[in-house]
Amino acid sequence: MSAGATCIAYETVTSSTGNLPLLAPMSEIAGRLAPQVGAQCLEKIAGGRGILLGGVPGVPPAEVIILGGGVSGTQAAQVAIGMGARVTVVDRSVAVLKRIAAQFGSAATTVFSTRSAIAHLIRDVDLLIGTVLIPGAATPRLVSAAMVKTMRAGSVIVDVAIDQGGCCETSRATTHSDPTYVVDGVVHYCVANMPGAVPRTSTFALNNATLPFVLAIADKGWRRAMSEDPHLAAGLNVHEGHITNPAVAAALGVRTLPIAAAYGEAVARVS
Amino acid sequence: MSAGATCIAYETVTSSTGNLPLLAPMSEIAGRLAPQVGAQCLEKIAGGRGILLGGVPGVPPAEVIILGGGVSGTQAAQVAIGMGARVTVVDRSVAVLKRIAAQFGSAATTVFSTRSAIAHLIRDVDLLIGTVLIPGAATPRLVSAAMVKTMRAGSVIVDVAIDQGGCCETSRATTHSDPTYVVDGVVHYCVANMPGAVPRTSTFALNNATLPFVLAIADKGWRRAMSEDPHLAAGLNVHEGHITNPAVAAALGVRTLPIAAAYGEAVARVS
Amino acid sequence: MSAGATCIAYETVTSSTGNLPLLAPMSEIAGRLAPQVGAQCLEKIAGGRGILLGGVPGVPPAEVIILGGGVSGTQAAQVAIGMGARVTVVDRSVAVLKRIAAQFGSAATTVFSTRSAIAHLIRDVDLLIGTVLIPGAATPRLVSAAMVKTMRAGSVIVDVAIDQGGCCETSRATTHSDPTYVVDGVVHYCVANMPGAVPRTSTFALNNATLPFVLAIADKGWRRAMSEDPHLAAGLNVHEGHITNPAVAAALGVRTLPIAAAYGEAVARVS
Amino acid sequence: MSAGATCIAYETVTSSTGNLPLLAPMSEIAGRLAPQVGAQCLEKIAGGRGILLGGVPGVPPAEVIILGGGVSGTQAAQVAIGMGARVTVVDRSVAVLKRIAAQFGSAATTVFSTRSAIAHLIRDVDLLIGTVLIPGAATPRLVSAAMVKTMRAGSVIVDVAIDQGGCCETSRATTHSDPTYVVDGVVHYCVANMPGAVPRTSTFALNNATLPFVLAIADKGWRRAMSEDPHLAAGLNVHEGHITNPAVAAALGVRTLPIAAAYGEAVARVS
Amino acid sequence: MSAGATCIAYETVTSSTGNLPLLAPMSEIAGRLAPQVGAQCLEKIAGGRGILLGGVPGVPPAEVIILGGGVSGTQAAQVAIGMGARVTVVDRSVAVLKRIAAQFGSAATTVFSTRSAIAHLIRDVDLLIGTVLIPGAATPRLVSAAMVKTMRAGSVIVDVAIDQGGCCETSRATTHSDPTYVVDGVVHYCVANMPGAVPRTSTFALNNATLPFVLAIADKGWRRAMSEDPHLAAGLNVHEGHITNPAVAAALGVRTLPIAAAYGEAVARVS
Amino acid sequence: MSAGATCIAYETVTSSTGNLPLLAPMSEIAGRLAPQVGAQCLEKIAGGRGILLGGVPGVPPAEVIILGGGVSGTQAAQVAIGMGARVTVVDRSVAVLKRIAAQFGSAATTVFSTRSAIAHLIRDVDLLIGTVLIPGAATPRLVSAAMVKTMRAGSVIVDVAIDQGGCCETSRATTHSDPTYVVDGVVHYCVANMPGAVPRTSTFALNNATLPFVLAIADKGWRRAMSEDPHLAAGLNVHEGHITNPAVAAALGVRTLPIAAAYGEAVARVS
Repeated sequence: MSAGATCIAYETVTSSTGNLPLLAPMSEIAGRLAPQVGAQCLEKIAGGRGILLGGVPGVPPAEVIILGGGVSGTQAAQVAIGMGARVTVVDRSVAVLKRIAAQFGSAATTVFSTRSAIAHLIRDVDLLIGTVLIPGAATPRLVSAAMVKTMRAGSVIVDVAIDQGGCCETSRATTHSDPTYVVDGVVHYCVANMPGAVPRTSTFALNNATLPFVLAIADKGWRRAMSEDPHLAAGLNVHEGHITNPAVAAALGVRTLPIAAAYGEAVARVS
Repeated sequence: MSAGATCIAYETVTSSTGNLPLLAPMSEIAGRLAPQVGAQCLEKIAGGRGILLGGVPGVPPAEVIILGGGVSGTQAAQVAIGMGARVTVVDRSVAVLKRIAAQFGSAATTVFSTRSAIAHLIRDVDLLIGTVLIPGAATPRLVSAAMVKTMRAGSVIVDVAIDQGGCCETSRATTHSDPTYVVDGVVHYCVANMPGAVPRTSTFALNNATLPFVLAIADKGWRRAMSEDPHLAAGLNVHEGHITNPAVAAALGVRTLPIAAAYGEAVARVS
Repeated sequence: MSAGATCIAYETVTSSTGNLPLLAPMSEIAGRLAPQVGAQCLEKIAGGRGILLGGVPGVPPAEVIILGGGVSGTQAAQVAIGMGARVTVVDRSVAVLKRIAAQFGSAATTVFSTRSAIAHLIRDVDLLIGTVLIPGAATPRLVSAAMVKTMRAGSVIVDVAIDQGGCCETSRATTHSDPTYVVDGVVHYCVANMPGAVPRTSTFALNNATLPFVLAIADKGWRRAMSEDPHLAAGLNVHEGHITNPAVAAALGVRTLPIAAAYGEAVARVS
Repeated sequence: MSAGATCIAYETVTSSTGNLPLLAPMSEIAGRLAPQVGAQCLEKIAGGRGILLGGVPGVPPAEVIILGGGVSGTQAAQVAIGMGARVTVVDRSVAVLKRIAAQFGSAATTVFSTRSAIAHLIRDVDLLIGTVLIPGAATPRLVSAAMVKTMRAGSVIVDVAIDQGGCCETSRATTHSDPTYVVDGVVHYCVANMPGAVPRTSTFALNNATLPFVLAIADKGWRRAMSEDPHLAAGLNVHEGHITNPAVAAALGVRTLPIAAAYGEAVARVS
Repeated sequence: MSAGATCIAYETVTSSTGNLPLLAPMSEIAGRLAPQVGAQCLEKIAGGRGILLGGVPGVPPAEVIILGGGVSGTQAAQVAIGMGARVTVVDRSVAVLKRIAAQFGSAATTVFSTRSAIAHLIRDVDLLIGTVLIPGAATPRLVSAAMVKTMRAGSVIVDVAIDQGGCCETSRATTHSDPTYVVDGVVHYCVANMPGAVPRTSTFALNNATLPFVLAIADKGWRRAMSEDPHLAAGLNVHEGHITNPAVAAALGVRTLPIAAAYGEAVARVS
Repeated sequence: MSAGATCIAYETVTSSTGNLPLLAPMSEIAGRLAPQVGAQCLEKIAGGRGILLGGVPGVPPAEVIILGGGVSGTQAAQVAIGMGARVTVVDRSVAVLKRIAAQFGSAATTVFSTRSAIAHLIRDVDLLIGTVLIPGAATPRLVSAAMVKTMRAGSVIVDVAIDQGGCCETSRATTHSDPTYVVDGVVHYCVANMPGAVPRTSTFALNNATLPFVLAIADKGWRRAMSEDPHLAAGLNVHEGHITNPAVAAALGVRTLPIAAAYGEAVARVS
């Protein structure tokens, strides 16, 4: 603000389908990483039960429960099934469960999310992957500390939702250099920025998502680009020393400069 | 014997791969029928738990345990998976379990067969399909009456092995007109001749298997056909009033006419 | 009405995607049941052709025609394919056929629905599953009595659409205790409430669909819940002795109490 | 022979599994090419019915019948299914049909081969692929000229077995530059050396198969290589002006030099 | 116009999903044909590299790059994968790539479209299928002549987009009777009306798409049919000697008769 | 030997199919672990390229090369494909490559193993998994140090064959506590006892394989068990202070006690 810069924030750019297109690639990557790090946490040296995610013929695979069937949860299910695990996806939307069932068929079980269903399932789980997010709100604590106590020693929780608080009561953010800790015998992996593990893939994914916006700004200038694309305009957060995003302004307790005003001022100066 | 007929029995014709080729089609059909009749027994009106084999999104499918991964068991697994059930195949051969795992991937769980593994699994099963056969011996009673008592009310046992005694202690043969009975709340389907339910398919399957032998007999006469094909010759059971199959003769307490002698005599008369 | 109860009807609650979310689970279950009961009707003892739905290697599987590619039809196709049948789906929407083709690939044939196409296909069918429904209208009689006469003896019709009149001219509603009858050699299965066969699965599926509405009513009271959710409000049928649903009122020949009025009155009494 | 060369023939080298390993890659390639050229022959400009092998949603795909489920037939089935056709494989071995059924599941129908089954199927076929070979014997003429007359105008026969005479009575060898001709309205593709269409793939495939033998000869000399590997030795056809292969010698009406003698002479000279 | 006919053009009828429903079937068919004709062009006799699209075990399959993941591109990917090729789909929409990835899983690679990505991929490609169309605009020339120079001798370009100019700088329209030409060693297949190769399939597909409109016109007369369905009305191009479609009128430099006026006149005459 | 114990060694028990059944489960587990640890090594923090094994839509997945298509290689391929990688399997047996191709279809590329093929492929690989073993011989060094120099910085080698020396010239055994090291920028994972990472799964897998032998010994005594099962007898290594296995004896430079003698002595003492 003091530098007078015009700032566009990735996290408030919107899309016509209602999601946040510059954040979505990171959800996708985090979801795909979850079974991979979960499998690693199940190894003995990491404190896990010492089991192979996919088992071998004659020895059953790990039971994997995925809380939430959104972008991260779907990707997590696909990789976990691909690694041979026995996967159950839990969601409170029947529509989401139908999509999961259509995509994975007999390879995934779908369960409607209730407190009692989760409490029942969690007792036999080897790997719990939490992906439940409510955009713009704190993540609901679907897994209580009491439930964690009922889990088997050496089982694993990967809390992909940790960026927004986590969906387990026992989750607290960790880092890539010290990714896990143990509560009641359960290994917790709660790295706050999971996609940072694979920066090359993450960067390309992010570039693909941002490139159309960058090209529009480069070709037309930011004012025209924003005036023609309200989704890009939604990304404008700071202009001429003022905050233009109401939510950010409210959080910081400052006055909001309406985006329209920012444009008007801009257009005036240009002409 | 008194009619002087020359009789070839389907059940003793052999093949180069060691199985009984004229019985195999019936095992295949019985295996494919098992999940179909099991699903039907799970309906409320049949005394079952009132659940759908494949569940629906949000409601888990039935847990199906298949004892034995041979011809019948493999076919049963394929249909049960196709109907959407959650399938576990139990066998005491690691090689068989590897074949099952390669064929069905994540869609089937494989478990090495031990008494304790079966006792553990059976408590949560909705449909148990027994297909374990030991050729030329009584079927082992893998499921004891005590285990059946631990099953859930309304669960179902389909005992495909009933033709050779059944693999559950509580199994006794039934008929297509009165196919089921209930023991300790568990519906038992133990029809002795399951393929009889689909005679058209069964007949064609049997014809396909027998046709090469029939053509050989028609083209060459039975003596030459048998002398050129020991597998067909193994089917000869009765000739000129004598029993030629040692096992049958022993079971009946009569003297065996060696097959060689039958041939010699035959050739002599012809010339 | 005389009791003064406030009544919400499952069958008029709507959703943002335009369907009836409290009826959809039953369509799904009926669709999955259809190949299962159809396979059973094909057994000899049930009057069928005596063929196995999936055939065996060397003996072709049953030809299954599914009229309608909606919720029921899609589920029916999935289970029929899973059981090994040769499946053709007929629909008059090219968009629906594209979805079916994308989901099932080479395992299903899709055919555009015309009278002549159905008449041509029906002659070689073993199992015809009728799922065509037009919401709020009588089901079209796609299969005439004359067409049924051209079907093979022992073939089977499962008319899932019987609840709204059925899509075959020869269909009339039956019950679980006496589910079939024969017309021109064709076995008809026309049980009006198919999901009643699996009440446990059906109840859980229905609970999953209704729970969000029940929670909203419990948390907020029915007036606020309805004022905040027009889809729930669409379910209100009776209030204070009056009919609030115009279609129901028209059918009964009584005056409609506008929903808005019901709310106003309600709010007034509360304050 | 007059040059005194020592000649090893690809077509008589054997393997421990009983087939001819230096010919097998060509069967594989011909099988994969068959649906490709068949699809092309179905185009209008080639004289075909003008249909797309895989159809599109709402328009059924081509009916493809494959005679023979061996190497060529299996490859042909895989590609035809991949292109979206409706595939039926016909073979007189139930064991072969079981393998096909296990590999392709619901995507292929299997039919036991009888004259009447073929005559029945051929009337509705769009593309018939003939792959039936009997090693060391003339290919059986499974499809008579009379049957061809019953085929639809514009349907197609690809006779992969033409190298050994073809399995249709109406087949006669053609070339890549003039690959097809029409009999009774049926387009016949009978190119004698199908793999010649893709020489780069064929050469690499052949090199992979021959390399182990070439290395053995290069490392050990041909005499030791052959003495240590009877399968390679079976390939010796000409040595020191004599024919060493009895079948070839018989066909040419000359005396055979026993392989043992060839070796003995060779060994003598070496020592 | 001079005949006074009332003309409805297939190519301007619209649908509620924004595409052109009477053109879509042709895109579908062209996409499915593309790998088939591409495979054929890869044959030696057609000037190609002489490789088999799907390779054989031990010899890698062809590398296929598909530019554009729309209707044609998706169909092309499905058939190319089915024929065993190694497929990469390039598109500038991440949403499209996600759909492709969900449909084909590990069997297709997805790449975000940039000039450099295409230039990099094209050097190792065996078959390039161009399907990129921008409705109502000239197809972008994604592949420059310079890029074509970097392709391997004997590689193949199938330019499905040739009807709107093609997406390669080196593309120019050809015909079914002389479908290919060679530029810089690269075989170009640029037939302008690909679905014409399979007229029977194309006609049925088109009939399925047009039938609902035809029935509406037959049942209601064209005026009422159009007044009730704006998508059909969008197809009206000529009426009473006037052009009613603004774009066509502009292209021809004549005055447009507003559709409303056409209706009003019509209605007046009727009354 | 000094204790006078009778010792049976897991590693010399044989089976009727020619492999070592008590070692096979460990190969299976190591193969399944290889992509999991390889994916982890590709993370930035482990020194890898920072890429996700399966990529995301728009960003290509990792290129994985698996040397050897035996038990370990097949399992590695299955998991790597399941995680979304682009997999190529290299083997010098065409028969093995055919099996891989049949199992994985379009999802895996197969390449015949030659020095030049490996040298060509290795330049673009992200993850190389070495599984080549020659029973009873040192593992061939298929990947030379010079080849490793041509690999990309941050690429990864997982040498499953390290227990028998490894198949890369740069491989040297590591441990679970310090599993990797870097040579020429390439991360090497060469843990000698990979299954030790998942001891619970490994133990059950081993128990399943050994149980039949243990039961036989328990039921019959070791002498009779061995006399009835030559595969178990092959496991006898030490008896009455003598070495009974010729290879072990030769390696230790001591005299062998023939197994027959051990038996004779045993039998004598028993009687």
